[in-house]
Amino acid sequence: MTRNLIDFVDITHKEFDELYRLCADIMKKPDKYKNVCVGKVLANLFYEPSTRTNLSFRTAMYKLGGSVIGFSDPGSSSVAKGESLKDTIVMMSNYADLIVIRNPMEGAARAASLYSRVPVINAGDGGHLHPTQTLADLTTIRMHTGGIKNLNVGICGDLMNGRTVHSLIKALSGFPDIRFYFISPRELKIPDYIRYFLDSNKQKYIEITSLEATVSSLDVLYMTRIQRERFDSESEYERHRHAYILTSGKLSDAKSSLLIMHPLPRVDEISVDVDNDPRALYFAQARYGMYIRMALIMTMLKNAPAEPRETEVGGAACVNPRCVSMFEKYLPNLTYEREGRVFCEYCDKEI
Amino acid sequence: MTRNLIDFVDITHKEFDELYRLCADIMKKPDKYKNVCVGKVLANLFYEPSTRTNLSFRTAMYKLGGSVIGFSDPGSSSVAKGESLKDTIVMMSNYADLIVIRNPMEGAARAASLYSRVPVINAGDGGHLHPTQTLADLTTIRMHTGGIKNLNVGICGDLMNGRTVHSLIKALSGFPDIRFYFISPRELKIPDYIRYFLDSNKQKYIEITSLEATVSSLDVLYMTRIQRERFDSESEYERHRHAYILTSGKLSDAKSSLLIMHPLPRVDEISVDVDNDPRALYFAQARYGMYIRMALIMTMLKNAPAEPRETEVGGAACVNPRCVSMFEKYLPNLTYEREGRVFCEYCDKEI
Amino acid sequence: MTRNLIDFVDITHKEFDELYRLCADIMKKPDKYKNVCVGKVLANLFYEPSTRTNLSFRTAMYKLGGSVIGFSDPGSSSVAKGESLKDTIVMMSNYADLIVIRNPMEGAARAASLYSRVPVINAGDGGHLHPTQTLADLTTIRMHTGGIKNLNVGICGDLMNGRTVHSLIKALSGFPDIRFYFISPRELKIPDYIRYFLDSNKQKYIEITSLEATVSSLDVLYMTRIQRERFDSESEYERHRHAYILTSGKLSDAKSSLLIMHPLPRVDEISVDVDNDPRALYFAQARYGMYIRMALIMTMLKNAPAEPRETEVGGAACVNPRCVSMFEKYLPNLTYEREGRVFCEYCDKEI
Repeated sequence: MTRNLIDFVDITHKEFDELYRLCADIMKKPDKYKNVCVGKVLANLFYEPSTRTNLSFRTAMYKLGGSVIGFSDPGSSSVAKGESLKDTIVMMSNYADLIVIRNPMEGAARAASLYSRVPVINAGDGGHLHPTQTLADLTTIRMHTGGIKNLNVGICGDLMNGRTVHSLIKALSGFPDIRFYFISPRELKIPDYIRYFLDSNKQKYIEITSLEATVSSLDVLYMTRIQRERFDSESEYERHRHAYILTSGKLSDAKSSLLIMHPLPRVDEISVDVDNDPRALYFAQARYGMYIRMALIMTMLKNAPAEPRETEVGGAACVNPRCVSMFEKYLPNLTYEREGRVFCEYCDKEI
Repeated sequence: MTRNLIDFVDITHKEFDELYRLCADIMKKPDKYKNVCVGKVLANLFYEPSTRTNLSFRTAMYKLGGSVIGFSDPGSSSVAKGESLKDTIVMMSNYADLIVIRNPMEGAARAASLYSRVPVINAGDGGHLHPTQTLADLTTIRMHTGGIKNLNVGICGDLMNGRTVHSLIKALSGFPDIRFYFISPRELKIPDYIRYFLDSNKQKYIEITSLEATVSSLDVLYMTRIQRERFDSESEYERHRHAYILTSGKLSDAKSSLLIMHPLPRVDEISVDVDNDPRALYFAQARYGMYIRMALIMTMLKNAPAEPRETEVGGAACVNPRCVSMFEKYLPNLTYEREGRVFCEYCDKEI
Repeated sequence: MTRNLIDFVDITHKEFDELYRLCADIMKKPDKYKNVCVGKVLANLFYEPSTRTNLSFRTAMYKLGGSVIGFSDPGSSSVAKGESLKDTIVMMSNYADLIVIRNPMEGAARAASLYSRVPVINAGDGGHLHPTQTLADLTTIRMHTGGIKNLNVGICGDLMNGRTVHSLIKALSGFPDIRFYFISPRELKIPDYIRYFLDSNKQKYIEITSLEATVSSLDVLYMTRIQRERFDSESEYERHRHAYILTSGKLSDAKSSLLIMHPLPRVDEISVDVDNDPRALYFAQARYGMYIRMALIMTMLKNAPAEPRETEVGGAACVNPRCVSMFEKYLPNLTYEREGRVFCEYCDKEI
C-alpha cells in the first residue's frame, strides 16, 4: 500500500477491499489484535481541535496495544507554536512509528510527508482533504449493503462547502451504478469543479431542492449541516434550514433498507426523534470509522520506516493563500500537470 | 453487581465486601492484575477539572493494563462544547468499554446512563453525589480497623455543604454501632435532610462546636475544609477557622489508634506538622482510593456491554435549576415515589 | 545507582557507561525491551511547558510498555495550582513508580525528592540544572566518536545564560583531553563561576568571538540560541546575530567528522540548508535523548520504592529569590559546605 495516506485516491479499490476485510475481522475477533502494536507509538498531531477524529485514531491505536503521543490543539503545545512544521515533523518522526496530522493549512499533510521518516496519515488539511472520513463512510455503506454498487445516494445540505462531501462524491463515483441525488438550496449547490469531475466521468446525478420529494427513492441519505454563516441574512437562513432538517415525519415513505448517515457532530439537522430509527446509522458510522482506522494503522505500520523521498525543487510557486507553501517558506515548489494544466502538489489548486 | 454506579446506595454491603477483598488482593499481588484489562478502554469524561479523581481513575486503569481516552475539562474538548450530553455519551460508548463522568449538572451521570452502551461510573455530578470518594473512605476505615463497626466517627469542618461528607454519613449509618460527632461552627451544621435521614434511621449522633473537647473520644476524625465564601464577613471567617484547624497540639489526648482522614486537597485545615504523625492517613486514603477503583473497574467491566434500558417518558418535570433535565431538553422526565412524595430520578430533589 | 537524578554529577562515569551500553542495546533490539515496564506508571509533572522533554520521557516510557500520568503545564491542572509542592509530590508518589519533574523554581526537584516515595528525575528546575539534556548530549558525542576523549569542542552562541551549556561544560571537563572553544559575543561570555570551575580543574579552553575562524579546528560544534532580550538594543542584537548563525557556507573548511549539535528547538541559528549535511546531528541528538531516557527509566525503577530520607532541619536560610525554599515555606533549610563556604542544597547558591 501507499507509504502515506494524503488523499483518498492514494488507495486503490483492491487496497480498500483488503482494509475492509481486515476491519471486518477486527470487529469479529478484537482479542486477536489487541497486542499487534505493542511497543509502537502513534504521533497524533492536531494543529486544530477535532475531538472525534482525534479520539477515533487514539482509541484505534490503544485497541491494538500501541501508545499515542502528540497534542490536541496548538495552544497546548510549544511545538506547534513558533517551530517550523518541518522541525516538528522531523522530531516527531524520531519518536513515533506513524504520524497522523490535522492542520488548517491546505497541503500540510503532503508537506509533512516530505520530512517524515515514518508514514503520514492526513486527518484533514484545511478545506482540502480528509481521506479517513471517506474511508469510514464507504466502510459503513459496504457494511450495510454487502457491496457498493447500484445505489441511489442522496446527499443533503451544504454541498458547496465541506471537503467531506466532495471526497465522498469522488470516491463513490469509482463504484458501479451509483446515482447521486444532490439535495440543497440553490445557494449551496455542488461547486463547478465537482460538476466538471462528474461530467467528465459520465457519472449520473440530479440536483434538486426538496428533501421530502426525494427521500423515497434513496438507498443512502447522507445528511450534512447547513451553517448560518453561509447565508447573506438571518432570514435567508431561517427560510431554508427547516426544509433540510431530517425528522421521522419525512422518513414515512423511505425504504426500510435506507441508510441514514452523518459525519457528526450534528447540531439540529437530524432531530433526536430519528435516533431510535433502526435506519439511523450515524453513530454506528463513527464506530466503523474507528475500526477501519485500526485496519489502516496496522497496514501503514507494515511500511518499514524509510527516509523521505528526494524532492526536486522547481516548478512554479503556488498562488493559493491557504496553501501550506505560503506559510512554510523553506518548502520546495512541487507541481504536477494534467491535461496541459499545472497544479500545486500540496493543495491541488491550479497555478 | 449494578450495571452502573451512580449513587453509593447502588452498592450492597455484600458487593462492597467483594470489592474490598479484591482491592486487598490487588494491593498484595499487583503483578497478578497488570494485564487483566489489556485491550480495554476507559472513557474519562471530566466536564470540570478534578485532577485527583481523574488521575486516580487513569492510574487504576493503567495498572490493570488498559487504556484511557477522554478530556479533563470542557475547554479542552470540542465534544464537551456545543454537543448534547446524549451525543457525546453515545459516541464515547462507541469507543470505550466503560465511562467515568464528572459533570457540574446534578443528575448528569444518571442521564448519561440512559444512552450509554457501556457501564457508567459517577465521578461527581455537581453537589449531588460522588460515590467513589465514599468507596475510598470506607476502604480506608476498614483497612485500618479490620471492620466497620462500633466506632466514634468525628466529622469536622463544613458539614452543611459538601456531598463528600453527606454521602459518607449516609453510608456509615448502614454499619453497626456507629456514633457520629459532628464538629462545626453553628453556621455550618448538617442540613435538615441529613438530620431527617439520621433520625428516621435512629442513628446516634451529637453536634458540637469544639474540636479540642471532642478529639480524645474519637476512633476516626474526618477533616474537611471551611471555605471563606461560606461566611458573611472576613472577620466571621477568621474568628472560626483556627478552631477547626488540626494541629499536632490538638492531638495530644487523642487515641493512639485514631484515624485522621481528609478527602484532599487540603489547604491549611491540617497543619503540616501533623503529616509525620503515624495516625495521619489522608495520603494513604488517596492510595486506597486508587486501588478500590481498580477493583471497581474490573467488576464493572464484567457487566457485558448492553443496550441502555428502555425509559418510559412521563411523570412531572423537575424544578431544580441545577438539574441536568433543565439543560438537556430531550431528556424524559423520570420520577420515583417515596412515602407518598415524588422525587426527580436525576437529581433526587422533591418535585 | 543514585536513588534520584537531580544533578548530572549524581552519575559517575561508571554509571554513565552502564547507561550508555543499555541505551545502545535498546536501540539495537527494541523488541527485547517493549514489555519491561508493563504495569509501571511514570508521573510526568511539568509545571512549565517543555514539549520536547515531556514527549521524550513519555515516549521512552511507552516504548518500555509503561504508562504515563501527569500534567504538561500548571494551567491544565488543579494540582499544580494552589496545592503545595509537597502535597502534590506525596500524592503523585502514591500513584506512580517514578516521578519526572520540570519546575521553574530552582531546587524544586531536590525539594520534591524529600517527600517522594519513589525516585525523582530532574527535568529542569528553573535556570539551575537539566541533567537529562546533558545525558543526551554525551550520548550523542560518544555514539559518533566511539569514546569521549581528545576532542576540540566548540560551543557557540549565548554562553552566559543557559544551564544546558554550563552543565555540558562541567560534564565534559571530566573526560580526558577535552579542549573548549567558547565562541560568543563579548556580552555573552561564560560566567565567572564557570571560568572559576575550569581554572580550578586546569581545564584547557579559549574564548573567541569568530565562529568562521574557529570551525575548521573543531570535532564538535554545539550551537545555542542568542536571544534578543539579552541585548540592550535591537541594533546591538542585529549587529551580532548573523555572525553566530551557522550556514553551509561557514562549514566549507570544517572537518568531515565534525558533529553539529543543538539542544533544539532552533529558531534561525542554524539555517535549514545545513539540515541535509550528514554532519548535522541535532535531530539525531533528540532521538538519542529518548533512548538514553529509556535506559535511565529502567535503571531508576530498579531502585525499590523507599520512604524518603530523613532530613535534619537546620543551617542557614537561602537568599536566592528564585530558590524553591523561598516559595515553599515548610521546607527545611538544607546546606552543605565546600572550601569553607556554605551553599544551599536546593539551588547551590552560596549563602
